[in-house]
Amino acid sequence: MNFPSKLVENAVEQLSSLPGIGRRSALRLVLHMLKKDKLAVEQFGDSFIQLINRISYCTKCYSISDAELCEVCANPKRDKQTICVVEDIRVMMAIENTMQYKGVYHILGGLISPMDGIGPNDIRVEELINKIENENVQEIIFALSTTMEGDTTNYYLFRRLKDSGIKISSIARGIAIGDELEYTDEITLGTAISSRMPYSE
Amino acid sequence: MNFPSKLVENAVEQLSSLPGIGRRSALRLVLHMLKKDKLAVEQFGDSFIQLINRISYCTKCYSISDAELCEVCANPKRDKQTICVVEDIRVMMAIENTMQYKGVYHILGGLISPMDGIGPNDIRVEELINKIENENVQEIIFALSTTMEGDTTNYYLFRRLKDSGIKISSIARGIAIGDELEYTDEITLGTAISSRMPYSE
Repeated sequence: MNFPSKLVENAVEQLSSLPGIGRRSALRLVLHMLKKDKLAVEQFGDSFIQLINRISYCTKCYSISDAELCEVCANPKRDKQTICVVEDIRVMMAIENTMQYKGVYHILGGLISPMDGIGPNDIRVEELINKIENENVQEIIFALSTTMEGDTTNYYLFRRLKDSGIKISSIARGIAIGDELEYTDEITLGTAISSRMPYSE
Repeated sequence: MNFPSKLVENAVEQLSSLPGIGRRSALRLVLHMLKKDKLAVEQFGDSFIQLINRISYCTKCYSISDAELCEVCANPKRDKQTICVVEDIRVMMAIENTMQYKGVYHILGGLISPMDGIGPNDIRVEELINKIENENVQEIIFALSTTMEGDTTNYYLFRRLKDSGIKISSIARGIAIGDELEYTDEITLGTAISSRMPYSE
C-alpha cells in the first residue's frame, strides 16, 4: 500500500501491529477517526499513554489494580486460604462475574508454551510457590484453558506442588450448560463420561 | 464488565468505540499492549495524537496529503482535465494501485445516504461543481460503490452535471475478472448482459 500521508501510514502501522487487525481494517479505522473531532482522537491516543505509564499491579495476586492491593485481595470477606490460579485478568474477570468464587487469585501472566519459547520462568510460578511456602494456603484451584499450553502448565504446576500437602483441584471439564450432546465434540464428551460425577438433586 | 482498573477500562472504552471492535476484543488488545515495552505503547498512542493534529488535505482534490498538493495533483504528468470522483482515499489508493489511471481525483468524503442523514451538502459536491465551472475539465468519471448510497450519489451528481457539456462516465460494472458465470449473482449478470461491450481482440 502506498499511503498519501506519512501520518496516516504511521497510524495504520500502529493499529495493524495489534493482533487480528490487518492493514486494510487499520486504514478503515484511521479514516473513521479522521471524521471524529480532535479532542476525541487526542483522548484515544492519550488513553494508551496513560495506560502504559500509570498501570500498576496488585502486590498480592499480580492482577492489574489502581491501588496497592486489588479489590479482591483488599476485601476482608474473601477467603485468603483458597487461591485460584489463572492465566490473566480476563479469566479473573470472567470468574468474578459468576459471583460463585469467594477465594483469591494468582495471575500467572501467561501459560507455559515451549513452541513460543515461554518457560516456567517467564510466568509467575516462583511467586506462587513462595506464597504457598510462606502463607497459610489450604487449597489451590487451577482455572487454566483446556489447550495444550493450559494442560502443560497444569501438569507442571501439579508436579511442583503435589508434595506440599495442599489440596489441589482443577475446574471441572465437561459438557457446557445448554449444550446438546449430539453436537458436542468427541474429546469433551469422552472426558465428561470418564469424569462423571455423582448425581445430586 | 467490571474492570479492576480505571486505566484499563478507559483504554478498552476507547478501542471499542472503533467500528468492528467489541469490548472483549478491546480488552484482549489492551492486555496485549501491556506486554509490550513502554516506548512502543507511547508511540502507539502518540501516532493518533500526531495524526489528528497534523493531518492536512490536498487543496485541490481533498485527499489526505502532507503537502499543500497531494502527489497526484502535484505531478505534472497527470491529466488535470480528467477527474475521477471517489468516496474516500481508500478508493483513490485502490485505483492508484492499478496504475491504469492517469487523471486526477476528487474526494467526496462520503456518499449521499438519506437513511444516515447525509445529504449533498455534507459531501464535497459544490467543490466539484466549482472545479467544473472554473477549470478546464473535459471528463468526469464516477468511481463509486455499487451500493444504494453509491447509486444515489451517482444519480444526484449526474443530474447536477448533465447540462455542463462535459463527458460523464462511470466505471464499468460487470463480471469480475476470474469470476465463474454460474456463481455470479443475478443482478450483476443481468447488468453485464444489458451493458455488453463490442468484442475486441
